[in-house]
Amino acid sequence: MAGKVQTAITPTRAEDYPEWYQQVIRAADLAENSPVRGCMVIKPWGYTLWENIQRVLDGMFKETGHKNAYFPLFIPISYLQKEAEHVEGFAKECAVVTHHRLEMGKDGKLAPAPGAELEEPLIVRPTSETIIGAMFAKWVQSYRDLPLLINQWANVVRWEMRTRLFLRTTEFLWQEGHTVHATRDEAMDETMKMLDVYARFAEEYMAMPVIMGEKTEGERFPGAVNTYCIEAMMQDRKALQAGTSHFLGQNFAKASEIMFLDEKGERIHAWTTSWGVSTRLIGGLVMTHGDDDGLVLPPRLAPSHVVILPVIHKEETKAEVMQYCENLARELRGVHYDGRCVQVELDAREGRGGEKVWGWIKAGIPLRLEVGPRDMAADSVFVGRRDQGPKEKYSAKRAEFVAGLPALLDEMQKGLLERARAFREANTVRIDNKDDFYAFFTPANKDKPEIHGGFALAHWSGEREVEETLRNDLQVTVRCIPLDAPAEDGKCVVSGKPSRQRVVFGKAY
Amino acid sequence: MAGKVQTAITPTRAEDYPEWYQQVIRAADLAENSPVRGCMVIKPWGYTLWENIQRVLDGMFKETGHKNAYFPLFIPISYLQKEAEHVEGFAKECAVVTHHRLEMGKDGKLAPAPGAELEEPLIVRPTSETIIGAMFAKWVQSYRDLPLLINQWANVVRWEMRTRLFLRTTEFLWQEGHTVHATRDEAMDETMKMLDVYARFAEEYMAMPVIMGEKTEGERFPGAVNTYCIEAMMQDRKALQAGTSHFLGQNFAKASEIMFLDEKGERIHAWTTSWGVSTRLIGGLVMTHGDDDGLVLPPRLAPSHVVILPVIHKEETKAEVMQYCENLARELRGVHYDGRCVQVELDAREGRGGEKVWGWIKAGIPLRLEVGPRDMAADSVFVGRRDQGPKEKYSAKRAEFVAGLPALLDEMQKGLLERARAFREANTVRIDNKDDFYAFFTPANKDKPEIHGGFALAHWSGEREVEETLRNDLQVTVRCIPLDAPAEDGKCVVSGKPSRQRVVFGKAY
Repeated sequence: MAGKVQTAITPTRAEDYPEWYQQVIRAADLAENSPVRGCMVIKPWGYTLWENIQRVLDGMFKETGHKNAYFPLFIPISYLQKEAEHVEGFAKECAVVTHHRLEMGKDGKLAPAPGAELEEPLIVRPTSETIIGAMFAKWVQSYRDLPLLINQWANVVRWEMRTRLFLRTTEFLWQEGHTVHATRDEAMDETMKMLDVYARFAEEYMAMPVIMGEKTEGERFPGAVNTYCIEAMMQDRKALQAGTSHFLGQNFAKASEIMFLDEKGERIHAWTTSWGVSTRLIGGLVMTHGDDDGLVLPPRLAPSHVVILPVIHKEETKAEVMQYCENLARELRGVHYDGRCVQVELDAREGRGGEKVWGWIKAGIPLRLEVGPRDMAADSVFVGRRDQGPKEKYSAKRAEFVAGLPALLDEMQKGLLERARAFREANTVRIDNKDDFYAFFTPANKDKPEIHGGFALAHWSGEREVEETLRNDLQVTVRCIPLDAPAEDGKCVVSGKPSRQRVVFGKAY
Repeated sequence: MAGKVQTAITPTRAEDYPEWYQQVIRAADLAENSPVRGCMVIKPWGYTLWENIQRVLDGMFKETGHKNAYFPLFIPISYLQKEAEHVEGFAKECAVVTHHRLEMGKDGKLAPAPGAELEEPLIVRPTSETIIGAMFAKWVQSYRDLPLLINQWANVVRWEMRTRLFLRTTEFLWQEGHTVHATRDEAMDETMKMLDVYARFAEEYMAMPVIMGEKTEGERFPGAVNTYCIEAMMQDRKALQAGTSHFLGQNFAKASEIMFLDEKGERIHAWTTSWGVSTRLIGGLVMTHGDDDGLVLPPRLAPSHVVILPVIHKEETKAEVMQYCENLARELRGVHYDGRCVQVELDAREGRGGEKVWGWIKAGIPLRLEVGPRDMAADSVFVGRRDQGPKEKYSAKRAEFVAGLPALLDEMQKGLLERARAFREANTVRIDNKDDFYAFFTPANKDKPEIHGGFALAHWSGEREVEETLRNDLQVTVRCIPLDAPAEDGKCVVSGKPSRQRVVFGKAY
């Protein structure tokens, strides 16, 4: 394999993207599968990333007037039945609690106690519209109680047959916003406001460019009037739905009897919304920025920003180098970046230097500082940037490095967004005939079905049949009807029927 | 009822303590029961209190070297069986998941799908030692991997027959620390260190004085070698176990095969600990500080510190008063207290002033500022402190109030701790004979079984039979063997057998 560059992750993205994804997560120690089918364990490096996501989003929710609360994990089966479409969409695969006690059997094994069967089985929440609706019906009495703006951080369970870490797991962590409004317009404003919060978060913090759009009827949340989403392109050119915001109209208010006395004294049904993002975002982050050497973390969400690696060749310089590194760590921790102190790791573990450096590259930390006696003598640091090749290191004067750190992190953050945006642009094509469309989505290499064209901006008549055909033929769906697309008359790329707007077609995670 | 002071909460503590507790929670809008048996809904005011508890504790855990992670909600039944004593203690009442799909029956009702029964039922975690142990067994290979210091914030479920908001609910929120160590001593140090963190948190933040001690064998965590706890006295003089820290020895390491190569190259079992506190702390806070007018919040954990209540009698002064109040709010929000900005509510809702004031008193907010045209003219505020009577208000110059705010909140925080400590001291008695002991714990009024003496410091021989007798006769248990009690020879207050130390007896929640 002459000329092949050695990479830290095997296989590379080009060789086997799905396997690359698993290996990056493993190499960065973000998470792993648990012995419980479909449930993952989120390890400290991955969980700190989630905490950072939570911290920022939580701040954005509170700034927009929302308050956190907590609702039960369990939902009585009968609640699911209240909203007809909701049943259809969510009744199928979920964890059902049928007993409330275990008993030791004669075989010495624990088993559900026959005498402890629940009168009404409970399901573990797959989403909380119905149980929260039941509470809101009590809380909302008058227009003075509105708007009611609530968010919940919680775990949810959807029994999945095929799971992948972060992208699709039986249990996952998320937030679900649930709001109640006096008018249709206010509920719609809220729906769009939160979609906008998600888009800003994705672009400004995750450095992940997204398209804001509306879902087609077939892809709507069960029970919603309209579902809006942010869609991002991963490096295999597939689409990831990264967040959704639902305008629920009066559907759930009617199902749960959320009614209020308006200013005229009439008792009417309220309008509701719900919106959520989950630990899936971490999967999106990995697939947006990761490279063949592993994870690449956007600085604003990175668990740590800088690792200091003392280079110690001789025992007699060890104490001095360590002292220098400790002082440097303290100095760096005093620097503010994006509303928090710079987070610094000082890696004083025993072990080979190269292995340690590569460990941090795979973990995606934005900056590596190698510090040995020579750097110390020159009062400098030897800097490696994660957004550059592993060998493009440079020496910087310590004081200058410290002073310039926030700007450097900002530059890296922006660079990641630009790179991801350029990738998406390069793989998004306007297509106006069916043959081109089919060719675009047909993998050149049958062994790598995941490598295809990317996003197609094409006309669609709005027909369900066209969606079905494309799903069956190509596994392609309308990812969204983009909000910012100009009105443009055209003909459906498949049926030839008239269309007023291009939509985004893609293969989805 | 001549001379009876009107109180905001009915009944008062003296009239009916358990009912008073429920009414305080209701009046402060902290939480309420849900339609799901035994599960509560934590409302925004209560949840913000929990967020503040989390923020402070999480900081203390991180300062002591712990990292957060997340483990599965579900535990296979067989895992529970790995540790013999653990099975005994936890197998009994828990939520058992037996199916993974619902189906619409012929009667139009959803039911567990007969074809979707799990091969091995799962239980919803009542605590995570076993599942975390299974992961730790993979993570720990060498002494270089130790100590492993992990914490999880999560929901847990223990099926309870009789529930009370925060104190005992089927689902509750908590944190569970799980650590692995190379030696017995290190694991024991960790156990005591975290007990100390809990005690510091209880006293310095919750203003709730606690006794640190060890549990007797009968009250130990199932599978632990030693269980340590913090115990607090509530205002009905009963004891609340507010946090526990367990030295697990090698019991769980053996059950889960957590082994490591030590420096000599021998593969040995590790030593583990676990420790936790839960939303029960909120119940403790209510019962430690609440009075007959409702909740009283310690400033360091209060969701908000100050409410500004504009006093508007005439429409023409409204705009001016509101402007003054908004400026005041902005100014107060710029003040730092205990590491965060002062949290301010500006209550501009319509409605009667008195009702609003009482609403905030019941919610426990530390400071109320009433501001009308007269205060505005004098550039002053009319201050009500929650730790004083509702009518003991005073006028303060605005600038002085703002400048003195952190000191005032500190004074209130300390005052609450002192008051609670004085209450505990006044109701803690050294008792040396059985008759006095029985009299101390026998309610004077049979209609109010909850009102009794308090804590008895008495000698105990260590006999399980004595514990049984007291539990049966008086519902009294050894709350703990206090850590700081001096060695003192004596005779067991019941059996007369020799004892080397006094222990704390009490009735427990």
